[in-house]
Amino acid sequence: MPDITVEGFVEEIRDLGGLKFIRLYATDGYKQITINKKKADPKLVTAFDTLTRQSCIRVTGEERPLPGPDEEGTEVHPSRLEILSLAAVPLPLEPSGKVPAELDTRFAWRFLDLRDDKKRTIFQVETAVEHHMREYFIENGFIEIHSPKLIGAPSESGAEVFSLPYFGREAYLAQSPQFYKQMAICAGFNRVFEVAPVFRAESSFTYRHSTEFTSVDVEIGYIKSFEDVVTFEQDWILYVLKKIKAEFGKRIMETFGVEIEIPKLPFPQVTMNEAYDIVEAAGIKVDRHSDLNSEGEKELGRYVKEKMGSDFVFLTEFPESVRPFYHMRPENNNSTTLSADLLYKGLEITTLAQREHRYEILRRQAVEKGLHLHNIEFYLDFFKYGAPPSGGFGFGLARFMLCMLGQKTVKEVTLLPRDPKTLFP
Amino acid sequence: MPDITVEGFVEEIRDLGGLKFIRLYATDGYKQITINKKKADPKLVTAFDTLTRQSCIRVTGEERPLPGPDEEGTEVHPSRLEILSLAAVPLPLEPSGKVPAELDTRFAWRFLDLRDDKKRTIFQVETAVEHHMREYFIENGFIEIHSPKLIGAPSESGAEVFSLPYFGREAYLAQSPQFYKQMAICAGFNRVFEVAPVFRAESSFTYRHSTEFTSVDVEIGYIKSFEDVVTFEQDWILYVLKKIKAEFGKRIMETFGVEIEIPKLPFPQVTMNEAYDIVEAAGIKVDRHSDLNSEGEKELGRYVKEKMGSDFVFLTEFPESVRPFYHMRPENNNSTTLSADLLYKGLEITTLAQREHRYEILRRQAVEKGLHLHNIEFYLDFFKYGAPPSGGFGFGLARFMLCMLGQKTVKEVTLLPRDPKTLFP
Repeated sequence: MPDITVEGFVEEIRDLGGLKFIRLYATDGYKQITINKKKADPKLVTAFDTLTRQSCIRVTGEERPLPGPDEEGTEVHPSRLEILSLAAVPLPLEPSGKVPAELDTRFAWRFLDLRDDKKRTIFQVETAVEHHMREYFIENGFIEIHSPKLIGAPSESGAEVFSLPYFGREAYLAQSPQFYKQMAICAGFNRVFEVAPVFRAESSFTYRHSTEFTSVDVEIGYIKSFEDVVTFEQDWILYVLKKIKAEFGKRIMETFGVEIEIPKLPFPQVTMNEAYDIVEAAGIKVDRHSDLNSEGEKELGRYVKEKMGSDFVFLTEFPESVRPFYHMRPENNNSTTLSADLLYKGLEITTLAQREHRYEILRRQAVEKGLHLHNIEFYLDFFKYGAPPSGGFGFGLARFMLCMLGQKTVKEVTLLPRDPKTLFP
Repeated sequence: MPDITVEGFVEEIRDLGGLKFIRLYATDGYKQITINKKKADPKLVTAFDTLTRQSCIRVTGEERPLPGPDEEGTEVHPSRLEILSLAAVPLPLEPSGKVPAELDTRFAWRFLDLRDDKKRTIFQVETAVEHHMREYFIENGFIEIHSPKLIGAPSESGAEVFSLPYFGREAYLAQSPQFYKQMAICAGFNRVFEVAPVFRAESSFTYRHSTEFTSVDVEIGYIKSFEDVVTFEQDWILYVLKKIKAEFGKRIMETFGVEIEIPKLPFPQVTMNEAYDIVEAAGIKVDRHSDLNSEGEKELGRYVKEKMGSDFVFLTEFPESVRPFYHMRPENNNSTTLSADLLYKGLEITTLAQREHRYEILRRQAVEKGLHLHNIEFYLDFFKYGAPPSGGFGFGLARFMLCMLGQKTVKEVTLLPRDPKTLFP
């Protein structure tokens, strides 16, 4: 076989008499490097002896099949070693996860924690997920927007917003691109999407919350009903899951033991009243003027999987009391909204709604919710000079990844998670 | 011809005796709607009479060729009108740009300002530019990252950084994903990109600055020299420009009068010393320990276009005094750096460099630049336990769009520009 060059981190070093084995975490997975100390150039053997674990090296040598009769794969017999960077000793964390570490320790040394093919796989899959999501948007005539994260007034209720000094004034960090994706529709952009960070000053420490996360936002103009948005979202998710299954299904099964299931369309829909009943019947307390809590969502997910065979369910007919002022309400029932949450394996990944685009009604709903109009006058103005009906959704990328890959917390699928305690690294 | 349905904003209304003409800014461009008041249903005529300019409507009717012998195109003879949203009178801004308005007024009413096919085109082209950029990354095995924007220490020198209260501590808004894209390389991600907002608390009001803008960031591991990064970037830009020319070349010429020129590879390179000479020879004062100023960059762009026939030029051999501590310096000349700026039509759109990945040297360079090590210890740690050599660049999306489409300011290619005065809408 011809010479090859492999690069990566020294995962493990084993000396077995006349042989030295190096397990390299290389740029495309693990590679074995075998040095026959008697046959190899003594200078090369000495150089290999200086290596510490996790050092970064470049090795050139002959690739040979592994010698054992039952062994599959190859090993590299090096003729050249380039030490790109020698690692200090001792390591503050075991990258391979062989020595269990606390979550805090792992994330304090995230760059070592991630030196593991399992974890690289998460981000390779996420890259593909995003790419196929975007592909679908592009094929469907969407315009990509980048809305400002520095804004002059809180974009939602004002709670849970970060604020900062801005040239003698107060600025806020956008909790969502909601107002601006609607602006883009009023600007004649027809259909828009944005993939960007959003910021929530929530003092919660749960497996599903972060103070900063990536939101995939969609807004579609000229819809005829909120069902148009429901249809769009389920088609879009189906498209993405099919692509991921084809490209990564086998690897995801091998790495995480999770099967990528292709959902059937349409996703089932359950009204909030039905959901309260289902959750209550399972012995979980519910507040019928509130969202389901985490336990309720999980129970509903379990129920829908069992009874309807679906990982996905749209929760519909949300009471207006738990929805923001800009959600449209049906003509015949002012106490609910034309909105839905999408649950994936018992976790909310989306809030979806048709928007109220009629200036007078929108203004009235804002007043009823006790909003300070002077803060949102700029937003209300978007609907004063001709506004298309529209609807859309926000989609939590990390939550989707968490459910798809069967992970325990959004932290696992986030490069550097942020919570109230964590600003480093 | 069969009936069609068109939707959009009422751009213009003209009454000519028995005929009413509406110019509709529709979802796919301008459409003419013609109502023959004598032949049409009187109720329909009355409904059309209630329309105000910029109202949002849906019209169904017969599509017919324009009647004049020299007229191309079609008109719609409506049988149905749905008023989706009636616009208030008077309009605070003329969307078509027919009545010139100050930049400030235009951006105060940005959603009206954008109701113009010329402006929609800018964002359609930008969407395609980004899509093809990402395509190239994906085809070349890159992982997409989302690095945190809320960080515990200023990512660069500490000047021009926004800070904010964060659960009893101080947080900062990332000025670039620099530290984190390097972390991803040290985590074994090989090649990464990010498209995300960056924040600069710069009190400048120029055609090329914003306090928040979209940065396309790239980092490539295991490079052998900084020329690897130069090669990657020019190949990437060539790929994108070819795609854009094929898809939008004609429309860009018709809309903006600009030809998309396909650059020749390699892009010319000019050292900073040569650049100082060229700019000085044109009678412009230069400070040889500083970057070129805007005037200098323009002159260099002009010179390179004239002498080398190129819109692009890499400025190389930057003195270390104007570069950050993490730029690698050549072995034989510690006073310069292995870095470059890329100019497009005389405007800097990229800073590119090989990074110093050797822990001791990196630390020494940080000390020499007067940095507080306790702020960047977490970053230095990335290079302590094995670090691949790497290089990369940051790329200003708006500046690229500005140059490509021959616009006057980055504001024109930004949905909602942010400067020290502007936080609304």
